Amino acid sequence: MKKRSRFLETPIVPFAVEAGLSADEILTRMERISFQGRNLATAHRVWQKMLADDVTIFLGMAGALSAGGLRLIVAHLIAHRYIDCLVSTGANLYHDLHETRGQAHYLGSPRADDAALAADRVDRVYDTYASEHEFIANDIWISEFVETLEQRPYTTRELLYLLGGHLWQTTGRDGILTAAYRAQVPIFCPAIADSSIGMGISQARQKMPHAGQIDVIGDIVESANLVIHRPRTASIVLGGGTPKNFINQASVQAEFYNPAVGGHQYAVQIVTDVPHFGGASGSTLEEAQSWGKLSTTSAKVTVNADATIALPLLVSALAQTANDALRSRVHPTFTLSSRVMTIDGRAVRSDRFEDASDPAN
Amino acid sequence: MKKRSRFLETPIVPFAVEAGLSADEILTRMERISFQGRNLATAHRVWQKMLADDVTIFLGMAGALSAGGLRLIVAHLIAHRYIDCLVSTGANLYHDLHETRGQAHYLGSPRADDAALAADRVDRVYDTYASEHEFIANDIWISEFVETLEQRPYTTRELLYLLGGHLWQTTGRDGILTAAYRAQVPIFCPAIADSSIGMGISQARQKMPHAGQIDVIGDIVESANLVIHRPRTASIVLGGGTPKNFINQASVQAEFYNPAVGGHQYAVQIVTDVPHFGGASGSTLEEAQSWGKLSTTSAKVTVNADATIALPLLVSALAQTANDALRSRVHPTFTLSSRVMTIDGRAVRSDRFEDASDPAN
Amino acid sequence: MKKRSRFLETPIVPFAVEAGLSADEILTRMERISFQGRNLATAHRVWQKMLADDVTIFLGMAGALSAGGLRLIVAHLIAHRYIDCLVSTGANLYHDLHETRGQAHYLGSPRADDAALAADRVDRVYDTYASEHEFIANDIWISEFVETLEQRPYTTRELLYLLGGHLWQTTGRDGILTAAYRAQVPIFCPAIADSSIGMGISQARQKMPHAGQIDVIGDIVESANLVIHRPRTASIVLGGGTPKNFINQASVQAEFYNPAVGGHQYAVQIVTDVPHFGGASGSTLEEAQSWGKLSTTSAKVTVNADATIALPLLVSALAQTANDALRSRVHPTFTLSSRVMTIDGRAVRSDRFEDASDPAN
Amino acid sequence: MKKRSRFLETPIVPFAVEAGLSADEILTRMERISFQGRNLATAHRVWQKMLADDVTIFLGMAGALSAGGLRLIVAHLIAHRYIDCLVSTGANLYHDLHETRGQAHYLGSPRADDAALAADRVDRVYDTYASEHEFIANDIWISEFVETLEQRPYTTRELLYLLGGHLWQTTGRDGILTAAYRAQVPIFCPAIADSSIGMGISQARQKMPHAGQIDVIGDIVESANLVIHRPRTASIVLGGGTPKNFINQASVQAEFYNPAVGGHQYAVQIVTDVPHFGGASGSTLEEAQSWGKLSTTSAKVTVNADATIALPLLVSALAQTANDALRSRVHPTFTLSSRVMTIDGRAVRSDRFEDASDPAN
Repeated sequence: MKKRSRFLETPIVPFAVEAGLSADEILTRMERISFQGRNLATAHRVWQKMLADDVTIFLGMAGALSAGGLRLIVAHLIAHRYIDCLVSTGANLYHDLHETRGQAHYLGSPRADDAALAADRVDRVYDTYASEHEFIANDIWISEFVETLEQRPYTTRELLYLLGGHLWQTTGRDGILTAAYRAQVPIFCPAIADSSIGMGISQARQKMPHAGQIDVIGDIVESANLVIHRPRTASIVLGGGTPKNFINQASVQAEFYNPAVGGHQYAVQIVTDVPHFGGASGSTLEEAQSWGKLSTTSAKVTVNADATIALPLLVSALAQTANDALRSRVHPTFTLSSRVMTIDGRAVRSDRFEDASDPAN
Repeated sequence: MKKRSRFLETPIVPFAVEAGLSADEILTRMERISFQGRNLATAHRVWQKMLADDVTIFLGMAGALSAGGLRLIVAHLIAHRYIDCLVSTGANLYHDLHETRGQAHYLGSPRADDAALAADRVDRVYDTYASEHEFIANDIWISEFVETLEQRPYTTRELLYLLGGHLWQTTGRDGILTAAYRAQVPIFCPAIADSSIGMGISQARQKMPHAGQIDVIGDIVESANLVIHRPRTASIVLGGGTPKNFINQASVQAEFYNPAVGGHQYAVQIVTDVPHFGGASGSTLEEAQSWGKLSTTSAKVTVNADATIALPLLVSALAQTANDALRSRVHPTFTLSSRVMTIDGRAVRSDRFEDASDPAN
Repeated sequence: MKKRSRFLETPIVPFAVEAGLSADEILTRMERISFQGRNLATAHRVWQKMLADDVTIFLGMAGALSAGGLRLIVAHLIAHRYIDCLVSTGANLYHDLHETRGQAHYLGSPRADDAALAADRVDRVYDTYASEHEFIANDIWISEFVETLEQRPYTTRELLYLLGGHLWQTTGRDGILTAAYRAQVPIFCPAIADSSIGMGISQARQKMPHAGQIDVIGDIVESANLVIHRPRTASIVLGGGTPKNFINQASVQAEFYNPAVGGHQYAVQIVTDVPHFGGASGSTLEEAQSWGKLSTTSAKVTVNADATIALPLLVSALAQTANDALRSRVHPTFTLSSRVMTIDGRAVRSDRFEDASDPAN
Repeated sequence: MKKRSRFLETPIVPFAVEAGLSADEILTRMERISFQGRNLATAHRVWQKMLADDVTIFLGMAGALSAGGLRLIVAHLIAHRYIDCLVSTGANLYHDLHETRGQAHYLGSPRADDAALAADRVDRVYDTYASEHEFIANDIWISEFVETLEQRPYTTRELLYLLGGHLWQTTGRDGILTAAYRAQVPIFCPAIADSSIGMGISQARQKMPHAGQIDVIGDIVESANLVIHRPRTASIVLGGGTPKNFINQASVQAEFYNPAVGGHQYAVQIVTDVPHFGGASGSTLEEAQSWGKLSTTSAKVTVNADATIALPLLVSALAQTANDALRSRVHPTFTLSSRVMTIDGRAVRSDRFEDASDPAN
């Protein structure tokens, strides 16, 4: 037999069953298996590395994760600063607000009789139900909040901070929006117009025609300025969608103004979409490197899995293994209560990109 | 043997091969086969029914369809009024603009060396390449256009109409934006902040801090007012994403103000996502009925297929079979050149929902 | 702007809509688009090249393609010698036999009430129904045929040839089994025990305990000997499954005995499975090269699509474009009527591999 | 607000993060979330119910699970009688044998240079490598074992028992084949001809032309007789493929001879394929009910997930929660060492179906 190939170096170690294993022990035993199990174990390691490094960690969140029971995981990640900035679809924030307001989603069936649900004013998200009446009440609650705002443009970051504050004062309950408010973690929602949050905002115009001016272009500028000020970043993406691209675009845009930006240093994505139809949600992290969204030397991993399986296991493990890293972590500090947010004491404008080569900066 | 079951009524008719079949003959022979082939044939019939009925037809477009070579199909659908209103991701409009400006995307490989591409400033979308230098030039072109606008909020509908006009005057070339401009077909882009169109707009702020005010909430109001004025609608969705939800939300929102709205009367979606992870892109049309997005009596079909296979075949068939319907079609007429668009001569406001029960309307 | 990158050579040419396009014109216009549309157009070209070259073309067939309305396409491919050897799941042959015997599958719904179907003895394959009573009659018909055979082992190749002949004599109808019988095209069914064909065979044992001896190991030997005798091969795979691996394994096994075998020269696979879960059905053609299943210089393409969409379009195009190639094609000639089949006049044994280095050969 | 709908009964309970959670605690907290996370938690409960009931539990196994590091989980399930009968693809048994013989699979990359791997004789399974030289040695080892057998037909069940015994005597190592040998748990491999096990067997014919007679039809009869003798069954399926159908077919076939058989009483499937392309691997458990494969009153769940993520978590939880059930479990007892196996002391023939209505039985 010829000499062993250089490709045959590190043996697979089959997963050994044992009673009483904790989440991190399970993931540790998955590190030397194959396919998506190995990738999930790698995600655990990459996230640990992010926490030990001096990087701003973005979390992107698409898919019906709040309705689907993961909102308190995200709230936990925010409160304990596993992440520094959330980019979300409007729906995830809306369904979070729905529960924080004391209402619920319900166990349902994907094989429901949808005409019967429609007759009962019950809305279905795959195997999960909610009351349309309660949704309408949410919309009114949001529109009344919007009517209290000044008649000027708000970035989604500013608006969502204020909304989170109002929600906290009203309910005192834990959730994504309230956790972000309390932890001073910014939330961006680039596609806010495509959600029930947006619908609620729009209804404020019935009373005030100039209500609900959302400066989504300001969001682009602000998010890039975050990266210009603090060029080392990491990206964690659940489900793809607009948050995935928005996080990447912040890095690409920032690089025009600060050559120290070189794409994210770390990337984890947990997605169910596939690359071969060309859509952004399923696009590979390698592809992201061609665009400069991701450093060509980054630690990175894609996990092809439903977040409702992967995230509970992954975050349960981190809750055990990341304590030291979280305690000693160097993370950015934000203030979000005024129109111009700050990062580590520096203003983050929404009306122009900071130019790192400008001596005034 | 017992009597034939009521479930065994219409036999499958196997596809018979023949030389020289045209697209519509192929689809006709697929009507009595199974699985997604049958669904694609059904989509052909449902679209024909839409054209024969008096409905406003929305087309949603997500995924890299413009970069991937389908933009002239969409332009054809607009120019010949197979559809009445386009809802698109920003990327599809950007890649359309890229080619209309005389540039190209290029054949590439999904197994490329992305570090080599990055070094060459080549951006990859699965198996398709483009020049980052040309993209930067597009961004500048867009920002210079934005600098010519008034310093006031624009809905994406108004902005994209003006952008299409500028593009047509500059290039005289066919594409999605220019076709929509010429045919007076509105385009909405609810997630414009999450795209290179948005990035181009944002760069105008370097010269003019108040440039690029996009009224995405106005888009919600305008799109709902379209449906309030003309309550019978149809939805065609390619790829899901924000356009899919935006089209549905217009119907849901409209129903609050006009009880004659009862969800889309027809729906075709060509998607690659699946329902069982709970995301909106893959959600079924049955689920949409629970929300009232779709009438419980609608003609509808989901085709689980890549649009780059399904759409060329489907539209080639329609080009043959839909001529009469297109000629006699009753479609809405828009004017888009001013801040307030009109549909069939009636103003479509972006600052409040029209109330159909209001005697003033 | 710097010099054009070497990666930017061949522009995408958007698909241009036109009435009356035939299948091959549609595929020609899809050659310079992206994603799976381009891949399907490439499959058309690769298959044309196979036909123009001197190769034995294997077709693998998994998934419910016969029940789903594609069986006459496969029969056409056999009769006109687009292919030389079929490897199929048992189910596809069974559902072919079902229709050739004059029965039907029926249009159904994927959202059926399966308890009601069960009560009516109707079996469902996604959106397609069939009568369990008729299936039971098929099983008896098969078992009665098996009772007429000699009490000795039969390869599936021999058995299916005889079954096809019996079916042709009984019905005179076109189908996969009868076309293969008439065209002297061998069929292998490596997983025959996992199908209703196998169930039918097994029932012959109630009368004859030694009936139904199937020499599936002989199938391995025979299929490898085909390749040992005629080392240049091509592989077309629909749906993956056991046929995909069996075709590859024939090549790998043959290479031990004839160094002129170097993996398939051409490969087309139309699959819906993905690579990243590690299963064979979704595995890439690149991966196949590591095993030597496929030549590293082969022309090859994977099309990620449902065969019920891809195959009607692809074969309709070939029916137009492949006529000359089919007429002048150099294809292997088989005799299948005796226990030892022949290829181009040479015996193909099932009881030992031919050794190409053996001077007796 | 109208009275609460009957559809809104059981609220979603968001997953609450906590350090140190064990596998079963994680799954318990996933029971009231949504999508595939909920389904995995349900699979845990359904499996527990199987163990508490008096049913024969079949496990089907397809996909590269042995190469991918799950073989010791399956060995554990066999040794501790979480299952009673394994149905596997040949590849999973082959890769198990490979490691039990003291060799390894290796960590690799899905983006490998496959031509370089081929040059080094390294075979790739997605992200996992193995030595072709070692595989050839396995094939010889298998063929030498086959040469020691009698020249008569063997069911795969008998052959694999003997192979497991030979492997255990040779190596004394734990694995699927050796665990099944030691625990007297039968293994069926209906598609043995489509695997390297089959290739190894076939090579025995070079020395002994009548070696390797595999009675796959006998497997059908034996597996149905198991169910005829013990009509209450459960099915656990990993990955679909031939094992999924073989397990179902045993039940369908058995029902002809014993009306007490009414389809499986419990079913869990962990699959990545989807239903809408019509293939058996992705087919729903509801569809299985139409065929009578599954009782219409069965407890059942489909988990759409990669088994390399789902199985480690699920079996780790069962290792904690199933101890009592395993201890008191009423499971069938087999003897496998002779040509005719027994179940609970009764002979299980392979040459005719037992007829439960026959007074001789």
